[in-house]
Amino acid sequence: MDSTPRGSLTRASRFPIAVLKETPSDAEIVSHQLMLRAGLIRRAASGVYTWLPMGMRVLNKVQEIVRSSMNRHGAMEVLMPVLNPGELWRHSGRWDDYGPDLMRLTDRHGREFCLGPTHEEIITDTLRQELHSHAQLPCNFYQIQTKFRDEVRPRFGVMRGREFIMKDAYSFHTSQECMDEGYQAMHDAYCEIFDRLGIDYIAVRADSGNIGGSLSHEFQMLAESGEDVIVCSDTSDYAANLEFAEALPPELPAGDGSESLERVATPGCTTIDDVCTHLNVPPERTIKILALAGSDDAPAVAVALRGDHSLAELKLARLNLGVAQPVQLLEGEALAGLGLVPGSIAPFDLPIPLVVDRDAAALSDFVCGAGAPDMHCTGVNWARDVGEIQVHDLRNVCEGEPSPDGSGKLVFRRGIEVGHIFQLGTKYSDALGLRVLGADGKPITPLMGCYGLGVTRVVAAAIEQNHDEQGIVWPQPMAPFHVVVVLLNPAGRRALTECAEALGQSLAEAGCEVLLEDTEERAGAKFASTELLGIPHRLVVSERNVEAGEIEYRSRSAEQSEQWPIQEAAQRLLRRLRT
Amino acid sequence: MDSTPRGSLTRASRFPIAVLKETPSDAEIVSHQLMLRAGLIRRAASGVYTWLPMGMRVLNKVQEIVRSSMNRHGAMEVLMPVLNPGELWRHSGRWDDYGPDLMRLTDRHGREFCLGPTHEEIITDTLRQELHSHAQLPCNFYQIQTKFRDEVRPRFGVMRGREFIMKDAYSFHTSQECMDEGYQAMHDAYCEIFDRLGIDYIAVRADSGNIGGSLSHEFQMLAESGEDVIVCSDTSDYAANLEFAEALPPELPAGDGSESLERVATPGCTTIDDVCTHLNVPPERTIKILALAGSDDAPAVAVALRGDHSLAELKLARLNLGVAQPVQLLEGEALAGLGLVPGSIAPFDLPIPLVVDRDAAALSDFVCGAGAPDMHCTGVNWARDVGEIQVHDLRNVCEGEPSPDGSGKLVFRRGIEVGHIFQLGTKYSDALGLRVLGADGKPITPLMGCYGLGVTRVVAAAIEQNHDEQGIVWPQPMAPFHVVVVLLNPAGRRALTECAEALGQSLAEAGCEVLLEDTEERAGAKFASTELLGIPHRLVVSERNVEAGEIEYRSRSAEQSEQWPIQEAAQRLLRRLRT
Repeated sequence: MDSTPRGSLTRASRFPIAVLKETPSDAEIVSHQLMLRAGLIRRAASGVYTWLPMGMRVLNKVQEIVRSSMNRHGAMEVLMPVLNPGELWRHSGRWDDYGPDLMRLTDRHGREFCLGPTHEEIITDTLRQELHSHAQLPCNFYQIQTKFRDEVRPRFGVMRGREFIMKDAYSFHTSQECMDEGYQAMHDAYCEIFDRLGIDYIAVRADSGNIGGSLSHEFQMLAESGEDVIVCSDTSDYAANLEFAEALPPELPAGDGSESLERVATPGCTTIDDVCTHLNVPPERTIKILALAGSDDAPAVAVALRGDHSLAELKLARLNLGVAQPVQLLEGEALAGLGLVPGSIAPFDLPIPLVVDRDAAALSDFVCGAGAPDMHCTGVNWARDVGEIQVHDLRNVCEGEPSPDGSGKLVFRRGIEVGHIFQLGTKYSDALGLRVLGADGKPITPLMGCYGLGVTRVVAAAIEQNHDEQGIVWPQPMAPFHVVVVLLNPAGRRALTECAEALGQSLAEAGCEVLLEDTEERAGAKFASTELLGIPHRLVVSERNVEAGEIEYRSRSAEQSEQWPIQEAAQRLLRRLRT
Repeated sequence: MDSTPRGSLTRASRFPIAVLKETPSDAEIVSHQLMLRAGLIRRAASGVYTWLPMGMRVLNKVQEIVRSSMNRHGAMEVLMPVLNPGELWRHSGRWDDYGPDLMRLTDRHGREFCLGPTHEEIITDTLRQELHSHAQLPCNFYQIQTKFRDEVRPRFGVMRGREFIMKDAYSFHTSQECMDEGYQAMHDAYCEIFDRLGIDYIAVRADSGNIGGSLSHEFQMLAESGEDVIVCSDTSDYAANLEFAEALPPELPAGDGSESLERVATPGCTTIDDVCTHLNVPPERTIKILALAGSDDAPAVAVALRGDHSLAELKLARLNLGVAQPVQLLEGEALAGLGLVPGSIAPFDLPIPLVVDRDAAALSDFVCGAGAPDMHCTGVNWARDVGEIQVHDLRNVCEGEPSPDGSGKLVFRRGIEVGHIFQLGTKYSDALGLRVLGADGKPITPLMGCYGLGVTRVVAAAIEQNHDEQGIVWPQPMAPFHVVVVLLNPAGRRALTECAEALGQSLAEAGCEVLLEDTEERAGAKFASTELLGIPHRLVVSERNVEAGEIEYRSRSAEQSEQWPIQEAAQRLLRRLRT
């Protein structure tokens, strides 16, 4: 049995990678800058990084926490290959669907491979040979593995790289109830992982995108620099992706439907703002109509929204109307070819199908395009003037609206996606022919779940969330060292060096990972570099302190230092580490 | 600080991968067969494998031991990318030299990459930016990482795959003395790793091959199925690769040089055997001359060996005579074009350079070709008949010869190479421009060492070394579980199940990794599958035993079972695990 002591003492004087004083000019975001300055990573190619010893210590801690929580929640570790046979990806249809993001190569015998960006194909194909009976299910396999995606524009360091480490897991179930339990177990595992990492996160309902399936949650680390907008209730725990958050139908219809339709001149008005100013109506009493290109051979589609609302593209995509992804507004000849007038598309007599947002559909006596240049209509009513319409929730919610869970108002926050869990349905088990015999002897196609967690990305996101002017402020569970012992001006003061060494050794023997700052730098430089590194606890051994029988202690996140008696320093620190 | 308990209890009834009763027909060697049968790995493509949960448990143990011993010997963990920029490999010259074994791809922007088979280029290029002063040296960086080599004929499962895990380390030094110390530290680390893994290995002097440099050792795991021949002394610890082992010069010259040269007819004799029979001389009194093709534009080279000796190709390669690698004997027109006669090449008047093996050079009055069909010469003497010759150690040693260390005789053993350490000199630091300032302010080109260890290969090699008719016999440190608790015929016997569960739980809480065999299989099938899995310790909970207040214990490597009192079973087992 393993009884290796986990403590260690590392001497800064023997640590070969120095911190950088200058902020690297090619790093746009703070985590990328600090990861370079603190010597965590170095760029090997665009979107491709080497993890240096300081970064590797952090990465190993994240991996260990992920591994132990996954094990504890019933998932079994495996390791699938980077080299994925092209034929498997052709079976699932993703060899073509994945596009140029998929890195491909041909081996010496001319066989095609891709470098796996995800492993639904491999795991499903492997288990096709192994799973025969419902009694083997549910089961869940995970790996911590290097993945590849040939991003068009890799940036933000390891936040969006081309080679990165993911924890990906795949579960298999005989029924929806079993699927739901397995999904919840992974939801719990993710919460445990992020709690143990000591970071601030939120689980949000999300769209499952191209990967297929239905239920899906994202785990977002809250950070002002995050690229994703998360919609939260200000009083409940409701949280969703902006594109996923349901817009509640308006409580009361606007207008009473008493006006009659009139065509009015709106010379030079091509935007909602122009029209509202000209006709002196608020934008929430207007309708705008977007004409969107179809994908491939599908016809164009018109979408009606209230003038003050924006289209939620994923909500539209889920209707499967054949709209091109990402959406493209028809313009110029494409619009003219349909007989549509830019800036004045009317909801009447459209040559293409129309879908209407719920809020737009609730309007009466509204203003909209008239289908002619420099003309709009007022007093329009759907039933009377347009006829039957298809109504859906198609817009993005706005801040301050009521939360769809009925509790509080919506506020927007920003996040970095670090995990994403999905119920996949039978997309891959169907495509790759995975079947097991049910209790009744009849074949079942297992339901699948998949669960991703960006291991390298978590490190960068933790820095985005936890830093100050001086550098990184690691959450203790992720810190490369638990404590730094700073030895000030040791030259010629042997007793001082011995005191620092003895303190470092006793902490290491008790299981601490200790960095001993024993270089010949000036005090100011030592403090600056240890703050940049973000080590949570600092003990300073200086002549003045030691003569007074004291050690100076400071938490990386505290404003003030404390003076501790030398004899108690190790025990006091160990108490802090254990709480 | 991490205080996660490391024990665990896994129920075989919930373990989704079953063992295979049949030996897979496509597996040639026993480790490959057993890895498939025990559910450690599955093939994803030729030479590409998925590690299943049972295999992953073993792989993680190997990685942890490697990691902790490398850390303990002063190496620092990093992680370099799989994607290696092509331009770096062009700088070092290996983009072309590596040939078709290097897997290559082009990204979406047309930039060339290879999938790293080794990382001298990346580490040297990275450190070029980081190392400036001799004070930062020595340093040593290692990684445990997935590597790629497009073998022509991948085989033997993970023993010779195309995607595999290596531990590779690179050290940097300011002087040869410092290099030697760092090399010794890694030699020690490797011995510690293999000792901790509990396997039987030997460190042998080896050739450094294409990687460049001088001193080199291989770590060979002894196994009858090994592909490499290792030459050992039967009394000392001398050990070397067959191709590297020095052939001692013969103590006494053979013959006294008194004979005169005669040309004799040897009709139809084209081999040494033919000639020896015809002339009634022993082969150790004959000389054979091999004409070998030159590489590229280099001329052919002739090598003279004693008739009973074989050429050590690496010894010849080290002379840098421009001989093609691997060696090719000249035949047919190529031979005739030089005026040489097959089966009768003479050492006189050769049109190509000649090198002579030490044993061949020690002969007098010998037999050799006459340079004419069906003719040989007898009574030949080098100095008188050939003139000045270049003499080198060029032959493979034979079993029973005196050991070159002066102690005992040579015996041959077979091994599997699992580690290889090298002193590289300045090959890569020169090619990639790594310089630091020395203590005197003048630039130094650091000496480099590199240290490889085949992590996935160690698992297969351990099985080659440790198995019997029933299956794997894991060395305890590598075993996927420490102990299996076999519950016999539990149906309807609740007390029995409770006893097995309680035993399993108490062992898990004490830090054991326990497999509880709680399936509904028959006793015979349970014993067969647990023996196949090779778990070192087995406890059997059966009705008969429990009624007698006993548990049956058996070590996987023992012939006999023991009966232990139930109350003492957990404590006794823990004592065995700790010793």
